[in-house]
Amino acid sequence: MRFSTRGQVDPFIAMDVMEAASAAEDAGRDIVRMEVGLPSTPAPSGARKALAKALDDQAMGYTVALGLPALRQGIAGLYKRWYGVDLDPARVVVTSGSSGAFVLAFSALFDAGDKVALGEPGYPSYRQILRAMSVEPMGMPTSAENRYQPVPSDIPEDVQGLIVASPGNPSGTMLGKAELKALMDLAEARDLAFISDEIYHGLHYEDRAVTALEVSDQAYVVNSFSKYFSMTGWRVGWLVVPEDHVRTVERLAQNMFICPPHASQIAALAALDCIDELEANRAAYAENRRLMLEALPQIGFDRIAPPDGAFYIYADVAHLTDNSLAFAEEILREAGVAVTPGLDFDPARGATTLRFSYAQSTDRIREGLARLQSFMAQRGK
Amino acid sequence: MRFSTRGQVDPFIAMDVMEAASAAEDAGRDIVRMEVGLPSTPAPSGARKALAKALDDQAMGYTVALGLPALRQGIAGLYKRWYGVDLDPARVVVTSGSSGAFVLAFSALFDAGDKVALGEPGYPSYRQILRAMSVEPMGMPTSAENRYQPVPSDIPEDVQGLIVASPGNPSGTMLGKAELKALMDLAEARDLAFISDEIYHGLHYEDRAVTALEVSDQAYVVNSFSKYFSMTGWRVGWLVVPEDHVRTVERLAQNMFICPPHASQIAALAALDCIDELEANRAAYAENRRLMLEALPQIGFDRIAPPDGAFYIYADVAHLTDNSLAFAEEILREAGVAVTPGLDFDPARGATTLRFSYAQSTDRIREGLARLQSFMAQRGK
Repeated sequence: MRFSTRGQVDPFIAMDVMEAASAAEDAGRDIVRMEVGLPSTPAPSGARKALAKALDDQAMGYTVALGLPALRQGIAGLYKRWYGVDLDPARVVVTSGSSGAFVLAFSALFDAGDKVALGEPGYPSYRQILRAMSVEPMGMPTSAENRYQPVPSDIPEDVQGLIVASPGNPSGTMLGKAELKALMDLAEARDLAFISDEIYHGLHYEDRAVTALEVSDQAYVVNSFSKYFSMTGWRVGWLVVPEDHVRTVERLAQNMFICPPHASQIAALAALDCIDELEANRAAYAENRRLMLEALPQIGFDRIAPPDGAFYIYADVAHLTDNSLAFAEEILREAGVAVTPGLDFDPARGATTLRFSYAQSTDRIREGLARLQSFMAQRGK
Repeated sequence: MRFSTRGQVDPFIAMDVMEAASAAEDAGRDIVRMEVGLPSTPAPSGARKALAKALDDQAMGYTVALGLPALRQGIAGLYKRWYGVDLDPARVVVTSGSSGAFVLAFSALFDAGDKVALGEPGYPSYRQILRAMSVEPMGMPTSAENRYQPVPSDIPEDVQGLIVASPGNPSGTMLGKAELKALMDLAEARDLAFISDEIYHGLHYEDRAVTALEVSDQAYVVNSFSKYFSMTGWRVGWLVVPEDHVRTVERLAQNMFICPPHASQIAALAALDCIDELEANRAAYAENRRLMLEALPQIGFDRIAPPDGAFYIYADVAHLTDNSLAFAEEILREAGVAVTPGLDFDPARGATTLRFSYAQSTDRIREGLARLQSFMAQRGK
């Protein structure tokens, strides 16, 4: 049968490493998984308890397309708790993960042939989802001096939208309020749709992250229960949209998704209150980060982005390799540590970068660092 | 902020009736909900038990994009059980509901500007999802003589794809194997992508439905756990694609969805084995259908499509109204029964049609029919 052109999106190069890591584990080898971008912790216990109860006493058919009203209210409350922002729950759209939020945002905002600017390195699926929807991603190479974040002078002419991520993936770097405002002002002046990916909010280790909503309501804010709330597989995220966009996004959501998964929404609502457990997770990430920042430079990975948030460290390894995929394969084979080559995040420069994730348990991070140290010592930096 | 043109999809006209019905209930009135297209039963108890157990002992992070291998295997087994078809589980793609299956299918198969033929009356979201993805829906008016299903002579020139649904929504009518083969042969001869929506399979009352896979592997088959398996809110569906399309759809799924909800996949896997409970649900629908077919013609709704499957009866009410929305509002107000005006399903002729759903309990169906009888008797047919 026929294929579309737009459906031929790029493969994930990192999948080769993940599959090799899984295959090695299946063959009985112990691998430290520093390549995976998800918490090793399950959904908080309060979330699981709430769902267990609902399994007994609720039918859990479709919810309304915008999500359970109580969950929308709870998410609005989070903006008060985290940022002191008063947010009308009517502007909150519960989505099937942040993935669903991007599909809705790109449908509501862009027509076929439009162009959207995004920083490189960045989350590879922005590009692939845009392409699958006939929108052209315009990569902007960002610089270490600008913390791997775009600045207004990076934004090309002739684009209809701009996506930023703070903390970024793979960089972990954040945009301060002034930097965010400079980008949003430019977007508003040029009538660009502004999309702020905030899915790593909550996972900060010094200053908290700034939401675009602290600057202006003229943004699509994307967030999710996957990372801070430790609920990746549940597929619940959200969008906050300008008031006059709610009806458009609602109609798209009714048709393209019907509703986000009901059971997951019940769990997510309860997760909002599981503060102690989630802060304990964050404390473990903070310790992992401390260990990484202490050890990696000594080991030989000393060119790293300022790791403000999320659970990643992005390293420039140009002094070590010009083939990050082969290097990642070598580290896996020789050291038993899986890391992510930068190629998916930055097609232009990712051949000389690696991403290290510290989302696993602290014991595993210690073990991984010890292995990396031996490997690099033998390799002779 | 800017809007796209394609994001301005049509509103659901039926939502007005649903909202009015909910508002009447909230105001304390008893309404028989013959407008809703979902089972009133919860997920089967075996499915809920399996998930309750998993909540205690599994982390439920992301699954692989194509879905849990055991679930793909189980779905392949269903094709053996239901149709005697040997299906390679590698061709099964678990999706976030049939909604997710359509988004993946339309990305993999169609480029912006392509045209796709679909029968009217039909499921309104086909049109809206296509439009949101810059693909043009080409409605084909079907006829009562052809059981509201398209025939080869209906297919326009210059389309790149064809969507059929059997049993159809709102019609409930099915395509026999010969009719399906005629359409698939034409699609193959003209290199049209062929999409077969089979989400009401399992809900038949005389002959079982025929899957496109009994005719040819050159089809995208869409199905779901929502209807027969009574799991609407769980958002688990599936696609079966030709072998050479798996890799394309996998990459799209990795980027656009990451994975279907993990908890829902665990429940769905267990639901496959809940045969007794699901067959009991079906027996209730069969009894509801018998009551409807006995009463509706006597009441005055005698121009109905052959109700082969699903849980709908589609009635031509041109002798009663030329404004189905106003008529549905009158029925709700006067009789306390919510029914769906045909306008969403058939923009051209839906002003003179209604859809009755019999997915509620048999007691409620009896009550609804009694109310409809009084209403029509007072109205003077």
